[in-house]
Amino acid sequence: MKLAMNLGSRSYDIIIKRGSLQRAGKLCNLARKVLVVTDDGVPPRYAKTIAAQCAEGHILVVKQGEGAKCVENWRRISSKLLHLGFTRGDAVAAVGGGVVGDLAGFAAATYMRGIPFFQFPTTTLSQIDSSIGGKVAVDLDGTKNIVGAFHQPGLVAVDPDTLATLPKRHFANGMAEALKTALIGSADLFDIFEHEYTKDGPQTDIERILFLCLSYKMGVVERDETEQGERKLLNFGHTIGHGIEAAGGLGGLLHGECVALGMLPMIEGKTLRRRTLAIMKKLGLPLACPYPAADILKHITSDKKRINDSYTIVRVKKAGQGYLETVGFDEIGLLVQELANGPEGAAK
Amino acid sequence: MKLAMNLGSRSYDIIIKRGSLQRAGKLCNLARKVLVVTDDGVPPRYAKTIAAQCAEGHILVVKQGEGAKCVENWRRISSKLLHLGFTRGDAVAAVGGGVVGDLAGFAAATYMRGIPFFQFPTTTLSQIDSSIGGKVAVDLDGTKNIVGAFHQPGLVAVDPDTLATLPKRHFANGMAEALKTALIGSADLFDIFEHEYTKDGPQTDIERILFLCLSYKMGVVERDETEQGERKLLNFGHTIGHGIEAAGGLGGLLHGECVALGMLPMIEGKTLRRRTLAIMKKLGLPLACPYPAADILKHITSDKKRINDSYTIVRVKKAGQGYLETVGFDEIGLLVQELANGPEGAAK
Repeated sequence: MKLAMNLGSRSYDIIIKRGSLQRAGKLCNLARKVLVVTDDGVPPRYAKTIAAQCAEGHILVVKQGEGAKCVENWRRISSKLLHLGFTRGDAVAAVGGGVVGDLAGFAAATYMRGIPFFQFPTTTLSQIDSSIGGKVAVDLDGTKNIVGAFHQPGLVAVDPDTLATLPKRHFANGMAEALKTALIGSADLFDIFEHEYTKDGPQTDIERILFLCLSYKMGVVERDETEQGERKLLNFGHTIGHGIEAAGGLGGLLHGECVALGMLPMIEGKTLRRRTLAIMKKLGLPLACPYPAADILKHITSDKKRINDSYTIVRVKKAGQGYLETVGFDEIGLLVQELANGPEGAAK
Repeated sequence: MKLAMNLGSRSYDIIIKRGSLQRAGKLCNLARKVLVVTDDGVPPRYAKTIAAQCAEGHILVVKQGEGAKCVENWRRISSKLLHLGFTRGDAVAAVGGGVVGDLAGFAAATYMRGIPFFQFPTTTLSQIDSSIGGKVAVDLDGTKNIVGAFHQPGLVAVDPDTLATLPKRHFANGMAEALKTALIGSADLFDIFEHEYTKDGPQTDIERILFLCLSYKMGVVERDETEQGERKLLNFGHTIGHGIEAAGGLGGLLHGECVALGMLPMIEGKTLRRRTLAIMKKLGLPLACPYPAADILKHITSDKKRINDSYTIVRVKKAGQGYLETVGFDEIGLLVQELANGPEGAAK
């Protein structure tokens, strides 16, 4: 399957196809110097497969986990590009999950004010969400994505075969973002989660879930590339989710797990909340937040979705229909408290 | 005088007016948190004048000189914004020369993927050239501007009164970029340098020189914001100039001095070269390159204007008419050698 992201001179293709890693050289121009960035949790053969197809392929490996998305690693990649003599005609490729994509993408966005960048996502989270849309960033002083850029990739090649090597918890981590998509924009996808998904995984082709997620996100990004309005919908669950993630610190809950928890108090109506909790249970996601409300709240004040003291949050009343609302910090406090009271509290 | 830079949603005004620092709050929205970045070579009252007009003004001072344009300072500014609770509705202001503008601009470009940015240039170099056009960057591993972004300011306010406190050598440093503009795009300006300029300075209003430089550059940036073609003309003298600058290292020749030297071998024809040397002499710019050709050349290989092994250079045959040419590294070697042979060599 192929989706064409239409952003004028920054347009690109999103390929969803088994075996696309092996065919990367046919899908984009690798006849140049390419720095392939990956992490030590990704099977090394994936990065090697890409590097082998480049005219001059180099591989740089960072440590697995959110801690790798730091200024030091951005600087290390930039220095590497410089010392290898990379020019504006060369490229960076990310092979791995969202951390690798965001980090390598930010290096590509800033090296010589921007060089080409290709995404080869190998986790559900990155295949469903983070590899498309051009948001790249690193963390600073414990705050996620606080320095970054918009830098669209030249190609996103999703190879579902790579999911075979993904640990179960990481598989579910990405499914949380798919559930987010279902709630804000795709009743069809919500239906799949309710009726064609068991605790053993999807009972339908994973490509179908990937396609529904990517095509929804693509439309949103095309209409609002730099998040002036509609794109904020994609932040559903993220205001509180980022607070939970920061409260847990490195080694705490995974990104998708936090987002799923962050969605709960934003769902209006007992029934939809219970249906969502039932899906989260099947997916193996946590159903209760392990951190106290105060710890979460103190990290929310540096949220990027805040303008002065207003927060743009996303609420959902009906599956597939998210909407934006501007609230004060007090309201956020109530929502976090509701979540901290437990799933019963969140589902009340 | 007011120039309107027309870049769609990224349009902004360039104001050239004595006393505009005092009127900043009337020229742009300072009713927000603003981090004013300046350096310790700039009279502190300039930054204070801006900060006093902000709803919540903070001042951050870096050391004077190219060494301040580093990753560490970019990180320091980003952390400061984060810890002061800056949101996307807040802003960064640069008060100083090109170093401060590039550094503060890169921080504004990347914090939360971009927040508003205002330029208050206080040197000839930044008033004539670096404050407009949106190129922001820091240096890395001895290479200038190697990591950066395109991030247009929301306002550029040029206050010629600030030039009164500028040391003579720094005044001439900026005039070198004005001479560059004259050679590539303004025969009128070249005429001013030949006939209305003495070793005591311009015999015409400095505003006229600023206006001719800024209006020429504005047109080029409007037609080619991200340097796909015509904007490369603005790099006249910079390929070799950056090599000279890197060869000298910190404490070596100033940016404009290097650019002026870098222009010399790119001027075709003995007569125009001699006329240019005569102007450089009046301006107090160096007429001979103090570094050996080999030292300069080794720094040119990481030039951003290189694609693989081709360099896009700018040549001038007639005052006001620059043109682009693609050459190999060997040709660059010959040009640098010619320059290293001395002004007679350069002027032969």
